Amino acid sequence: MTADAPGFVPTPHPAWLPDDAFAALGRRRVVVAGDGALAGTVAEEVAAATARFGGSFSRLEVGDGVADADLVLTLATDTDAGSASGTDPDAGEGFRLTREGGAVVVQADGDAGLLHGLFHVVRLGEAAFDGPDADETHAPATGLRMLDHWDNVDTHPVMGQVERGYSGGSLFYEDGVVRADLSRVERYARLLAAVGINRVAINNVNVHRREARLLTDDLGDVVRIAAVFRRWGIRVHLSVSFASPILLGGLSTSDPLDTDVAHWWVRAAARVWSAIPDFGGFVVKADSEGQPGPFAYGRTHADGANMLAAAVEPYDGLIHWRAFVYDHRQDWRDRSTDRARAAYDHFHPLDGAFADNVVVQVKYGPMDFQVREPVSPVLAAMPRTRIALELQVTQEYTGQQRHAVYLGPQWSQILGFSFWSADGGASPTVADLATGRAKAVEDPGTGAWHKPAGGFAAVSNAGDDEFWTGHPFAQANLYAYGRLCWDPTLDPADLLDEWAGLTFPGAPDAVRQALHTVLDGSWETYERYTSPLGVGFMVRPGHHYGPDVDGYEYTPWGTYHFADRDGIGVDRSVRTGTGYAGQYPSPWRETYESTRTCPDELLLFFHHVPYTHVLHSGSTVIQHIYDTHFAGVDAVERMIEAWSAVSPLVDPRLAERVAERFAEQLRSATEWRDQINTYFLRKSGIPDERGRTIY
Amino acid sequence: MTADAPGFVPTPHPAWLPDDAFAALGRRRVVVAGDGALAGTVAEEVAAATARFGGSFSRLEVGDGVADADLVLTLATDTDAGSASGTDPDAGEGFRLTREGGAVVVQADGDAGLLHGLFHVVRLGEAAFDGPDADETHAPATGLRMLDHWDNVDTHPVMGQVERGYSGGSLFYEDGVVRADLSRVERYARLLAAVGINRVAINNVNVHRREARLLTDDLGDVVRIAAVFRRWGIRVHLSVSFASPILLGGLSTSDPLDTDVAHWWVRAAARVWSAIPDFGGFVVKADSEGQPGPFAYGRTHADGANMLAAAVEPYDGLIHWRAFVYDHRQDWRDRSTDRARAAYDHFHPLDGAFADNVVVQVKYGPMDFQVREPVSPVLAAMPRTRIALELQVTQEYTGQQRHAVYLGPQWSQILGFSFWSADGGASPTVADLATGRAKAVEDPGTGAWHKPAGGFAAVSNAGDDEFWTGHPFAQANLYAYGRLCWDPTLDPADLLDEWAGLTFPGAPDAVRQALHTVLDGSWETYERYTSPLGVGFMVRPGHHYGPDVDGYEYTPWGTYHFADRDGIGVDRSVRTGTGYAGQYPSPWRETYESTRTCPDELLLFFHHVPYTHVLHSGSTVIQHIYDTHFAGVDAVERMIEAWSAVSPLVDPRLAERVAERFAEQLRSATEWRDQINTYFLRKSGIPDERGRTIY
Repeated sequence: MTADAPGFVPTPHPAWLPDDAFAALGRRRVVVAGDGALAGTVAEEVAAATARFGGSFSRLEVGDGVADADLVLTLATDTDAGSASGTDPDAGEGFRLTREGGAVVVQADGDAGLLHGLFHVVRLGEAAFDGPDADETHAPATGLRMLDHWDNVDTHPVMGQVERGYSGGSLFYEDGVVRADLSRVERYARLLAAVGINRVAINNVNVHRREARLLTDDLGDVVRIAAVFRRWGIRVHLSVSFASPILLGGLSTSDPLDTDVAHWWVRAAARVWSAIPDFGGFVVKADSEGQPGPFAYGRTHADGANMLAAAVEPYDGLIHWRAFVYDHRQDWRDRSTDRARAAYDHFHPLDGAFADNVVVQVKYGPMDFQVREPVSPVLAAMPRTRIALELQVTQEYTGQQRHAVYLGPQWSQILGFSFWSADGGASPTVADLATGRAKAVEDPGTGAWHKPAGGFAAVSNAGDDEFWTGHPFAQANLYAYGRLCWDPTLDPADLLDEWAGLTFPGAPDAVRQALHTVLDGSWETYERYTSPLGVGFMVRPGHHYGPDVDGYEYTPWGTYHFADRDGIGVDRSVRTGTGYAGQYPSPWRETYESTRTCPDELLLFFHHVPYTHVLHSGSTVIQHIYDTHFAGVDAVERMIEAWSAVSPLVDPRLAERVAERFAEQLRSATEWRDQINTYFLRKSGIPDERGRTIY
Repeated sequence: MTADAPGFVPTPHPAWLPDDAFAALGRRRVVVAGDGALAGTVAEEVAAATARFGGSFSRLEVGDGVADADLVLTLATDTDAGSASGTDPDAGEGFRLTREGGAVVVQADGDAGLLHGLFHVVRLGEAAFDGPDADETHAPATGLRMLDHWDNVDTHPVMGQVERGYSGGSLFYEDGVVRADLSRVERYARLLAAVGINRVAINNVNVHRREARLLTDDLGDVVRIAAVFRRWGIRVHLSVSFASPILLGGLSTSDPLDTDVAHWWVRAAARVWSAIPDFGGFVVKADSEGQPGPFAYGRTHADGANMLAAAVEPYDGLIHWRAFVYDHRQDWRDRSTDRARAAYDHFHPLDGAFADNVVVQVKYGPMDFQVREPVSPVLAAMPRTRIALELQVTQEYTGQQRHAVYLGPQWSQILGFSFWSADGGASPTVADLATGRAKAVEDPGTGAWHKPAGGFAAVSNAGDDEFWTGHPFAQANLYAYGRLCWDPTLDPADLLDEWAGLTFPGAPDAVRQALHTVLDGSWETYERYTSPLGVGFMVRPGHHYGPDVDGYEYTPWGTYHFADRDGIGVDRSVRTGTGYAGQYPSPWRETYESTRTCPDELLLFFHHVPYTHVLHSGSTVIQHIYDTHFAGVDAVERMIEAWSAVSPLVDPRLAERVAERFAEQLRSATEWRDQINTYFLRKSGIPDERGRTIY
């Protein structure tokens, strides 16, 4: 292994779009018809692929006769041609695919549909052409498939260039300014488009003074970024500070009911949309973890969001308003305050009060992106509000892209969760709520979701790292997120196949199999060796990497486990606890209320139990802790073995990176195992039944 | 109370040298005789004071006839006049004071003695002139009375401008360079001179890349700083990186036995002393917490130190070589490694191997400046080595100048400790060892200390804060440190009187009494509400402020308490533990070895005992923990009451600062009490006998 010379910047890894991913298409005779901007992008892609692989490419007008083509990408003739060339990339994203005798026709609903149809064909590879005759329609589950970047323009003294970023620097910013060279952003936009992402927020929700200026002084730079994304059907959003009228406008207040404040935002929005006609809107983290908000003026979140909504409404702009609001200066002595309750308590009473173009963005769980949490009850509690589900692709609490953790299965489980039935059945899922496909339900009363829904948002895991995501396997998370936004019912194991097939084209099937061995169960493996039974946290404060069982136990952050010599867990029952379980509709309020019915994996989230409590699995809590922690490390060792057998079959640079990450994962998992087991042996005094080494 | 306008820089508080401290002297007829540089400084001080208070000042040649003077400050006529005007400020620091019928004559041994004599008279105030006839000689216990500054030239991303600094920015550096305006340094030098400090190291022992350049590119700036200190009889030292030949010289090695390396240092020393003839020497932290050192080349600390010593020897330069060497990447699972043993294990075998101008600088305890540690056995273990005692004036682990903690009593206890007897008696004390006044002892064998001793060093607590030290009362620590260096047998309560008398001249006696009520017992009060019975740490990792019982328990830092549900403490006995107790001579090795004889306040440092273990005090360990933590907070409340009664009698700005600090101390002490008590109640399950609130 040779070290790279200083200053050497490797070509970014192609991720799921290596040239070879276009081989099947590139060997065909392909026709592209359409005169929109995205048709142009599609034509460039096809031209390059056919030139590379010996196929042919021609471009026609929509409706022209086509003969002897293997693949035609065209607008559906009954589509309004206006929308195809307009600036609204959300419109017409769907497409119809027909295959007859090996000839494939993609008829797009609009300009954007051409792009999505192209990448659909790329994903299928040879199967696109070899498959049986078919006639399929494809359309995204929601038009709001968003990726949030927690990138700072200036390097933050504590949080760095990218808050919770584990993939090098920012794709957008360097040395305190927007990068002059956006070619890497262009590659990134192409990758995102290929998985269906259609909106990106380009700066951190914690908007510091420097970042606030993107809205004004630096708007020209935002225009440049938006131009790059536009070629790939992606709209740009900005995170804004609620205190912008003070920070940027020189006003003495940012009171949402103050006329000058409202007018300041009206003018700000006018400037932005004048410069970027397809601009997406604003993301706001208000009255959360120190960010300014309407509370300072005795106003509600609805007051704040609606004032902004009015300013952006003429442009069909959106306000993404985060529901991540809680008391981060809680007294740990006070057991009656429960952070898990906070979002519901703040937002549920406001249901119906938000404007139509406000999206309330809700983290999937009530705490903060833990490896295991119950699904946030806020998602079910606001039927008259546009709700977006917020996920975290960046692995803040799930191994920080040093651990191989494929989050597809977690997200799939969340998306498929139903608040109104224990087994899913016909009642609406979280995906249904977020995409607007929810059917009427009897509880909580009003019935149908009559608002357009808010779609999906997630924190990106990408940076200027050679492999985009630090750990090469973390690419699979970004891939799966985009694909699940398009279709939340997709099977995460199938998505892993898609990703592997594209990313390692031509690799022996053993590579794909090894990736399944490594990644299919990796989320649960990570859960096994970290905090047990849904209790969460136990991470080092601040950076959130590695174990520290009591790290947050006596802090103001509201994240406690209450372990003593007898037992552990947080009583969130209605009868004897904080009442959080009562925020769920039936049957979950009853299921979570009792230790008899609460699922094992969430037991300590909902209940404080003795170490000798017997789980549904038949094990005691303490023995479960020991067993899972030994098993977790064993599983990491098996992951490493499985990968080591095939790693010589892939790019040596990638293999080297993965090997380095695995070494750290094994070290870290061992540290977790030993600290957790030692902590609980010291506290409980109960030895491991199997006599394994605990320190 | 009004807020200061932005940019307002208040005049620094005069600390213990307000104009009024010179009132007694200033009203007299004073004669200064001497032509050395420091005689000039003394003359300026006297001229200013007499002008202010109506006395008279005249300057004469040494030996001139003097009539009608109340005070004569002159060189002793039998002193070598050469040394008086030379550049060696250590020489002739003593003085003889005679008082006859109210006329006072100070006859200095040399130029520096004039300065110390002047400040002696200032400290005495009216008593200097009103006292009975007297004939006294005064001389410092040691010529090495040093203050180390952990200041960084560049603001360090983690450690800031001043590592472990709690008093604003650096007095020396700002914006990555040495300050252009050194007037504040001049005031500081005057304060230091008044308490007897005669050497300062001006940069952090952790020498980062930027700081290393003080030795070369920035030598001109060091010359400027040295010129300021020289006027006050203070020599300047630099902390240097052992890797300087690589960092600055472009060599490929810093192997101390490499000829090129040795020559590089010879040339570096020649440059420094050529620019600063009275330069003091180099301070080195080597092979410690990541700093480079001789270990990388398979060499010993003696090899490293002696190579440097040879380079500075022609100039009578010194190498201060820190003994703070331990494994900071220890495995917490490994109970056989004991950080407390490390300095002894590293350095004891090297006794006799260090050059005469090497001072091995030893922290007072074996760990790291905790509120309570046993005295480091290294101090007794190297009779053929120059040993300096290192103290920490900056309150890293003792409240960070937000808590009022007067450390004089702790230092006095350490200085008076004897390794060879349980009650002190006639055997040499730590002060004797550090000052070279040690008498011969039978153990450890060789008898007399034949090397010149290494004196004292301590980490400064001063910065560019208005009150110099953040907490105004922390001035008393800097004051007491200097005075104890001059005379280690001084009573810390008397020093508090001295400091209070100078700092609050003319204040009613109630102020002095309140300061005693607040400060006399403040060290033990802090001990009460923080980590119990000598076990140490339990602080938040990194910044070391506030409680976190398990914060270091599973880290690589070697600072553990091993608390489980049954007991707590570290077994450092010879019979069953790490053997650390065996590093002491008799009788302490036997005293510490047994729980029966080990002093309560160090019990958990030396032994792991059940919570039910009964202390000499009659209390159990667990009840002692509860009782002291409640008592500690109660004591803080009483401190605040006592001060509140007199605070209207002092400068309102100072009163305001103290009030703000007291509020934080009470909050923090309460937090300590509740976290420690809750932690141990949860772990032990043993309730407080008195039924007080534990969470």
